[in-house]
Amino acid sequence: MQNHRWLRTPHGTPRRISYGADYNPEQWPREVWDEDIRLMKQAGVDVVSVAIFSWAALQPAEDRWDFAWLDEVIDLLHANGIGVDLATATASPPPWLTTAHPEVLPQTADGATVWPGGRQHWRPTSPVFRRHALALVEKLAARYADHPGIVAWHVSNELGCHNAYDYSDDAARAFRAWLQARYGTIDRLNHAWGTAFWSQRYGSFDEIRPPRRSYAFPNPTQQLDFARFSSDALKDHLIAEREILNRITPDIPVTTNFMIMGETRHADYADWAHEIDFVSNDHYVTEGRDELAFSAALTSGVARHRPWFLMEHSTSAVNWQPINRPKRTNELVRDSLTHVAHGADAVCYFQWRQSAAGAEKYHSSMVPHGGEDTRVYREVERLGGLLRRLDPVAGSDRDRSPVAILFDWDSWWASELDSHPTDRLRYRREALDWWTALLNAGVRADVLPTDADLSGYRLVIAPVLYAVPQGLRARLEDYVRGGGHLVATYFSGIVDEDDRVWLGGYPGAFRELLGIRVEEFRPLWDGETIGLSIGVRGDLWSEPVDLVADDVEVLAAYTDDDLAGGPAVTWRPVGAGAAAYVSTRLGADGLGAVLPTLLERAGVASELPEPLRGTVELAVRRAGDRRIRFLINRTDDAVRLDGIEGEYLVGGPDLPPRGVAVVG
Amino acid sequence: MQNHRWLRTPHGTPRRISYGADYNPEQWPREVWDEDIRLMKQAGVDVVSVAIFSWAALQPAEDRWDFAWLDEVIDLLHANGIGVDLATATASPPPWLTTAHPEVLPQTADGATVWPGGRQHWRPTSPVFRRHALALVEKLAARYADHPGIVAWHVSNELGCHNAYDYSDDAARAFRAWLQARYGTIDRLNHAWGTAFWSQRYGSFDEIRPPRRSYAFPNPTQQLDFARFSSDALKDHLIAEREILNRITPDIPVTTNFMIMGETRHADYADWAHEIDFVSNDHYVTEGRDELAFSAALTSGVARHRPWFLMEHSTSAVNWQPINRPKRTNELVRDSLTHVAHGADAVCYFQWRQSAAGAEKYHSSMVPHGGEDTRVYREVERLGGLLRRLDPVAGSDRDRSPVAILFDWDSWWASELDSHPTDRLRYRREALDWWTALLNAGVRADVLPTDADLSGYRLVIAPVLYAVPQGLRARLEDYVRGGGHLVATYFSGIVDEDDRVWLGGYPGAFRELLGIRVEEFRPLWDGETIGLSIGVRGDLWSEPVDLVADDVEVLAAYTDDDLAGGPAVTWRPVGAGAAAYVSTRLGADGLGAVLPTLLERAGVASELPEPLRGTVELAVRRAGDRRIRFLINRTDDAVRLDGIEGEYLVGGPDLPPRGVAVVG
Amino acid sequence: MQNHRWLRTPHGTPRRISYGADYNPEQWPREVWDEDIRLMKQAGVDVVSVAIFSWAALQPAEDRWDFAWLDEVIDLLHANGIGVDLATATASPPPWLTTAHPEVLPQTADGATVWPGGRQHWRPTSPVFRRHALALVEKLAARYADHPGIVAWHVSNELGCHNAYDYSDDAARAFRAWLQARYGTIDRLNHAWGTAFWSQRYGSFDEIRPPRRSYAFPNPTQQLDFARFSSDALKDHLIAEREILNRITPDIPVTTNFMIMGETRHADYADWAHEIDFVSNDHYVTEGRDELAFSAALTSGVARHRPWFLMEHSTSAVNWQPINRPKRTNELVRDSLTHVAHGADAVCYFQWRQSAAGAEKYHSSMVPHGGEDTRVYREVERLGGLLRRLDPVAGSDRDRSPVAILFDWDSWWASELDSHPTDRLRYRREALDWWTALLNAGVRADVLPTDADLSGYRLVIAPVLYAVPQGLRARLEDYVRGGGHLVATYFSGIVDEDDRVWLGGYPGAFRELLGIRVEEFRPLWDGETIGLSIGVRGDLWSEPVDLVADDVEVLAAYTDDDLAGGPAVTWRPVGAGAAAYVSTRLGADGLGAVLPTLLERAGVASELPEPLRGTVELAVRRAGDRRIRFLINRTDDAVRLDGIEGEYLVGGPDLPPRGVAVVG
Repeated sequence: MQNHRWLRTPHGTPRRISYGADYNPEQWPREVWDEDIRLMKQAGVDVVSVAIFSWAALQPAEDRWDFAWLDEVIDLLHANGIGVDLATATASPPPWLTTAHPEVLPQTADGATVWPGGRQHWRPTSPVFRRHALALVEKLAARYADHPGIVAWHVSNELGCHNAYDYSDDAARAFRAWLQARYGTIDRLNHAWGTAFWSQRYGSFDEIRPPRRSYAFPNPTQQLDFARFSSDALKDHLIAEREILNRITPDIPVTTNFMIMGETRHADYADWAHEIDFVSNDHYVTEGRDELAFSAALTSGVARHRPWFLMEHSTSAVNWQPINRPKRTNELVRDSLTHVAHGADAVCYFQWRQSAAGAEKYHSSMVPHGGEDTRVYREVERLGGLLRRLDPVAGSDRDRSPVAILFDWDSWWASELDSHPTDRLRYRREALDWWTALLNAGVRADVLPTDADLSGYRLVIAPVLYAVPQGLRARLEDYVRGGGHLVATYFSGIVDEDDRVWLGGYPGAFRELLGIRVEEFRPLWDGETIGLSIGVRGDLWSEPVDLVADDVEVLAAYTDDDLAGGPAVTWRPVGAGAAAYVSTRLGADGLGAVLPTLLERAGVASELPEPLRGTVELAVRRAGDRRIRFLINRTDDAVRLDGIEGEYLVGGPDLPPRGVAVVG
Repeated sequence: MQNHRWLRTPHGTPRRISYGADYNPEQWPREVWDEDIRLMKQAGVDVVSVAIFSWAALQPAEDRWDFAWLDEVIDLLHANGIGVDLATATASPPPWLTTAHPEVLPQTADGATVWPGGRQHWRPTSPVFRRHALALVEKLAARYADHPGIVAWHVSNELGCHNAYDYSDDAARAFRAWLQARYGTIDRLNHAWGTAFWSQRYGSFDEIRPPRRSYAFPNPTQQLDFARFSSDALKDHLIAEREILNRITPDIPVTTNFMIMGETRHADYADWAHEIDFVSNDHYVTEGRDELAFSAALTSGVARHRPWFLMEHSTSAVNWQPINRPKRTNELVRDSLTHVAHGADAVCYFQWRQSAAGAEKYHSSMVPHGGEDTRVYREVERLGGLLRRLDPVAGSDRDRSPVAILFDWDSWWASELDSHPTDRLRYRREALDWWTALLNAGVRADVLPTDADLSGYRLVIAPVLYAVPQGLRARLEDYVRGGGHLVATYFSGIVDEDDRVWLGGYPGAFRELLGIRVEEFRPLWDGETIGLSIGVRGDLWSEPVDLVADDVEVLAAYTDDDLAGGPAVTWRPVGAGAAAYVSTRLGADGLGAVLPTLLERAGVASELPEPLRGTVELAVRRAGDRRIRFLINRTDDAVRLDGIEGEYLVGGPDLPPRGVAVVG
Repeated sequence: MQNHRWLRTPHGTPRRISYGADYNPEQWPREVWDEDIRLMKQAGVDVVSVAIFSWAALQPAEDRWDFAWLDEVIDLLHANGIGVDLATATASPPPWLTTAHPEVLPQTADGATVWPGGRQHWRPTSPVFRRHALALVEKLAARYADHPGIVAWHVSNELGCHNAYDYSDDAARAFRAWLQARYGTIDRLNHAWGTAFWSQRYGSFDEIRPPRRSYAFPNPTQQLDFARFSSDALKDHLIAEREILNRITPDIPVTTNFMIMGETRHADYADWAHEIDFVSNDHYVTEGRDELAFSAALTSGVARHRPWFLMEHSTSAVNWQPINRPKRTNELVRDSLTHVAHGADAVCYFQWRQSAAGAEKYHSSMVPHGGEDTRVYREVERLGGLLRRLDPVAGSDRDRSPVAILFDWDSWWASELDSHPTDRLRYRREALDWWTALLNAGVRADVLPTDADLSGYRLVIAPVLYAVPQGLRARLEDYVRGGGHLVATYFSGIVDEDDRVWLGGYPGAFRELLGIRVEEFRPLWDGETIGLSIGVRGDLWSEPVDLVADDVEVLAAYTDDDLAGGPAVTWRPVGAGAAAYVSTRLGADGLGAVLPTLLERAGVASELPEPLRGTVELAVRRAGDRRIRFLINRTDDAVRLDGIEGEYLVGGPDLPPRGVAVVG
């Protein structure tokens, strides 16, 4: 449905970059709330998410409700000009519910029950949980329908972060219904899943179960469909809550916070994005700065380049990694502004005030254990000031880039299934390597779902685009014949949407387009690399590539082993465009030896002065006809922005280590 | 029972080396079957295994049977001269069965149920499964009893590959019955298991359970007996199917495919071999070429040196290892002929045509995804031609070697139990190291069960022969006194068949024979080695060896640490023979420093010209009085077979890398 | 209650250092018993523990008892002057009990049942188990109440070694009762546990469960309280048995064997020690000699420096580590005498005679598989002789040291909970590093529970004293102001007894005392180190330390990274004493650069001549006004004890490698 509605604002108020955090006042005595308000205003906070984990506080027993404290919190915030992104509070069920109804507790593939103690211990498909959760949503919506302080609804929280994969009998029932809807007849399912293999042919949908613990390798299409189903089961919960909210409070936009970050993969957010008014995302740094920018760009792609809401990130260290390191000087501001550069119109943290107790007490926050007289809070104040200088950006789309990287949840799920040529392949890693290689070359890129409109992109990269249905295959062929430049990597175009191999030689879906044919995959051992004629080395994967069209050009050949002399990177003109293939993993550095040729042939040039390429990331937002450029220092050294002309909204031409300038 | 019957062949047809694969036509549309027949004939295929995983196709519901497709397949194959090794199709139960009877699903030691999704999800001891499986066998046997195309029965498939260890209540009942049969009285069990320890004394057999998850170390003899029981429970299933087949189709030989490969150890195949007409084996390369040859020699030993059937191996990559690499040039042919060299009279693959879907779609096959225009299919054709030149070998026994390596499932199971001096010891590794060391020395060896007749062997090696019952102890002493030469390694002769220590000093069973005594084991740390006076180093294990007989000769002494100067390798003349001891792990290379002395004293010389020793493996089959020699290039370089005289059935004196010549 | 009663001895017999082992005659035929007696007397054994795992032998069925064999054993021992430390035999339930009552079997956090097969498979909170166990205790106590051979009662065995953490419904019930007793009201629990977080607020105690498997991080205070509860549940079992014994046999002292060794942490032995007449301990070497001495000193601290009983250690290798190495020359004697040096008045082994069968057959013993003609038995005899020369030590306390190291189970449990700044922190490691550093400096230390009287100690070290209730905080402040010198390390004084953070800046409990303030923790990556101005490097942890008092002296500053120039080690005079802080992990070697200053300022000097510091450990027992010094060679080289004057009870001035001298 996605209406592209943004936070409600008082009539006539200009839109701005919002700033705030999750706010959990129920963890603190009443006197701290006044202190909170004072510090929020001092820091420029104008929006907070409230009540995310408050179910037990709002409904202390099945037949008892307590909204008084929440009334007071919302009134207090509203009176002080701070908008409330109000959670539906269904993220974690209270103890009385799981005591009375242990049948809402999820079960692992091994049949073990997941008990309370942490959070999110509910089956997405439990009718009992659903009934109780929706009752709460209904109560909340009714109570606050007319409160002017509510700027948006925050459905649940990080849906599926923990409970995405439930193998209970509830899940089994829902999975069967989902399969029936997808396949119609059991024969079609049997064909799609290849159940002629290993005596798996089903007589009816009733015989199907989730892929619980089994011997050997469970049916791969069953696994793939279970991943799809699990995403849909959570989306179904989102929709169920949203429908109540839309019915009772049609004027309040609805969102839910995605988790586009790192290897988190349980939800097809490109699909989910259609169900909410604006996209929200949580992001925590786990793999360095480029991953943050990549995830932000993907969030923007998922949001179809409309502005989105950064619902959570951290001011400094988190608590859930093995070793949790605080952020260094400038990183707090740099990370936040990188999100804004890639489309965020709100910058929020988990959480406002650092907990004194509980599992997240060592997670940083806007107000640390040390209080306001701390380096972190001072940086929080500084960022609040900088955001005000970026208000011209608010509401603007991210500017389209010359290059697109395709990102596809089906291929992610399917390419990393078991019983493959190598279990070392990481789908997202390949996309991220291309992202970094493009940053190194000073070229901007978008990260797009496969249903995106590709017209206008000079170069489209398909990293490990493993699962290619006929429709996508045709669209990509059209894109190339119409003048586009497509680069596919190893293990792309191998199967269709049922994980059935495109026969006749690899990559079946792209064989004709690329003019090549591969008979066998040749994954590399751990630590093994293979040389290329262009002076770099591949790892993870290699292939004997046969050229089957006359007009294929070899851009790089293998130099080692059985493959010596064979094509490693190819290029073929097709129609008005061209299709290229990279048959090994080169990593971000190795791709640097291939990219210049690809970019040049596709007609893509860096928008940065030569000395800044690689050291500075450029991201652009387009406010009307104003292109506002974000220049982000990727290095730990100072950088001088020679050649960057315009008005400096933030920073100046001398970027400190990890610094950001915004030129509009 | 083992009748040494081979495949049925039309009357008067000379026996040949059979060639083929698992054939799963139910995975493909009917039109592909004709293509299959054409390609099979083109490649020289004359036998295929059919219906291995076809239960769900043959019996789509409890009360519905469908043999029409199988009738057609068998007729089609037979009409084209391709014999059918017909599976009993019981390897994996269909979904309807596990839906109606979840009580057939196995349980782990942790109590978790193993669900459908993969394969072989049935309890070997389930009466419900047994009843349904035997009904299917009965149906199949009756239907095809008179079909001339059936050349053999293929019981189940890789029995116990996944489901060998089931801890369910069915298993508990069967285990108790097995124990009652073994021990007769609970007192004898209590003594054997040492239950005076840790308050484990049983009052009756009813109190016994499988070794489910427990604290500390479960009773070791309970563990050992459970391993024996689990092997027997699967054997019992084999016998139950075989008895039906023998009753209905007395003229059709029965086999089942063993898994003598790598660390697979759940079945005592030396024992199982007595229950079938001919031994079949599946083998996949996981540890390199020597392991393949070793496993083939062990298969031959298990088959008591009668020809055996290579039921499965791969044309190229498998799909179930972490990283799956295709075979290199010549490896397809070399691997197959190595099996033939060690006694295989049939060379078959999993599978004929590479699946388009399911868990094994990336497993190589005779007809790859790329079809017949592929390197793999062309090699398959070439091998088909070579096998025809080896028809003189068919039916011949493997020629006896001068050296024997003992291989014993009891010692394998028992020596690697927990709470031992080191958990790094790998029973099979020691045997394999001796095998490689003998290959390096150019000396042929047999690999034998401990009940084999040792007379005629110049040298018998007992690597980690940990569990030595009194009868074996006496037979080995007789062998030595009668002129044999026995080499025992560390951790041999330590316990009896109940895993009770032979007291008085180690190795209790061999102490008097060897003339040594060890008070304590001294395992080595990871990465630690210990020097020997002969210039090599041991790892894993060391011991203070005391000489307790006057006539013990020290062949090598330790040079390091507390053990410096103490005996490491000893030799003692006993009667007409001698008994030697190696007290540390030397590995294949280190053994090379010890073997020449042992071989020379035992009167064993290499049959190969000096330059070929180590680079070429020699294996011999004896067809009547014709010794047919297989010369297998162990290296990646070309080798010239100077000094090898005779008629070259396959290859010539210039062996390419990984090449094979057969001289008859 | 702890009455400081020692073993019963015949009237008028002088107290001596007792010597013996666990004795399991039920594993052997009757004729071996006489041999045992002969060898015991030959070795000087005067006490053995009997019947530890004899439940199944004593009560072969619920309604059948068999004490005849035990009568004979006890009579035999007594007749030969060997005292019997009689076990209550409840350590492991017999098969009939777990067959009739599977509800006594523990359950894991995953819900899996722990089955028989090993040992200690009972729920500490099972009323059924309790009833049967106490019936056995009652029977035993009644039967042997008047037997003069019984010198002590040995309750159960290594209570909780395996079964400490049980998550069953029995455990849930008992946990709730324990919580109700601790907190009184659910509101107080909700506050302590911080359940406002993640919707965890409980409506009643009935809603609480043990921290079974859950998503994310279970509530930390729930985890901490479950650790406390689990220790108390076992203690409750101990008390229940003890009360029966005290009632029936008031004159026989009661003990149970603790497991103060390595990372074993399930029981708060400082608390348990109050419940028994004398402390017993089991110790096995897993981390080298210094850990043995540290554990012995901690045992002494737990015993409030009264003599204790070394119930188990090993003569040589154990069987339960991955690699089990025998002891080297002199280690058998050295290890035993190190325990005596630190307060042991009895030296016993597991076990007397090495088992021929069962899980511990490769565990060394006083009489090895090889019998009496072995190196081990000869050393056992030698030690028996040496102990007689130490009889003057018997009954003496360990002499107070100038330095104390605080050791606290609450901080151990709490500091290593999940979701912390780093999961690499090891509480005990830091204490052990200080211990080693003090040994290296030639300075003796005590290891004390936090409730110990600190007056008289010149220097008190608080390594990672993470959880500091207000009372402890006040006592440590008083100690310092009164002239003491306190050293706290990183991650000390962070939370109170509810694991709630002391707010305002770290370390909240000690901030004012130390005159410092830390805003964020900065754990180090694996392999990363940070330099200090005193020439050593820290790892694991670092912090930006702000000085907030004028009189803080920086003893060492960081030299690297963001922290360069910041304080790393501080010293502040407070009242008549001083408080120091070490903000990184220096390890034993690195601490060597800090300790001299700390010791000098605290007025602590080594009691050893300079050349012996570091090479020799000094430990002192005070028998009346006689100070008996143990000098233990920490090295593998010979050491000459120049400057050590006095009568040599054991050894002489030339210490062999790993040798011990006792000078009294």
